[in-house]
Amino acid sequence: MTKAPEGWEARGPRPMNLFRRFEFTRYSETRRFLDALAELSARVGRHPQNINFGATYVNITLEVAEGESEAPWSELAQQINALTEASGER
Amino acid sequence: MTKAPEGWEARGPRPMNLFRRFEFTRYSETRRFLDALAELSARVGRHPQNINFGATYVNITLEVAEGESEAPWSELAQQINALTEASGER
Repeated sequence: MTKAPEGWEARGPRPMNLFRRFEFTRYSETRRFLDALAELSARVGRHPQNINFGATYVNITLEVAEGESEAPWSELAQQINALTEASGER
Repeated sequence: MTKAPEGWEARGPRPMNLFRRFEFTRYSETRRFLDALAELSARVGRHPQNINFGATYVNITLEVAEGESEAPWSELAQQINALTEASGER
């Protein structure tokens, strides 16, 4: 992993994961973000390995399997970041 | 907690939580279950304390706060169970 996308933490080394926690001020914003994330994943055909959420937070783990290129996961991380601009992350 | 609803594990004692893991055969079924769960939560105005999911599983934790009645949470657990009949839990 050359450099993790803005706000993401590279965890590894095998498999290499990208992790980020997003926090929101209310559930409706969390919900909007989760829905947008599901749509994004369906559109790009690439899904987080794990999503852990409560009323006002969402923790996302992207898993880069051994031997797999990290580029599309890094791109997905950036696309997820872009979603927060629309969903009111604090 | 008198008796946990079918498939749920009571974890406690303070706060008392109800926990259940649901497993699915494919992501589309997991997705359908998650969407139905979000609709159910919005309808009853009661949300799980935590939802942790990947492609083919969903772990749900319901938190019964100290001094709060367990009845509505137990009812929510049963309503969540009913959702799986429609979403193909294995």
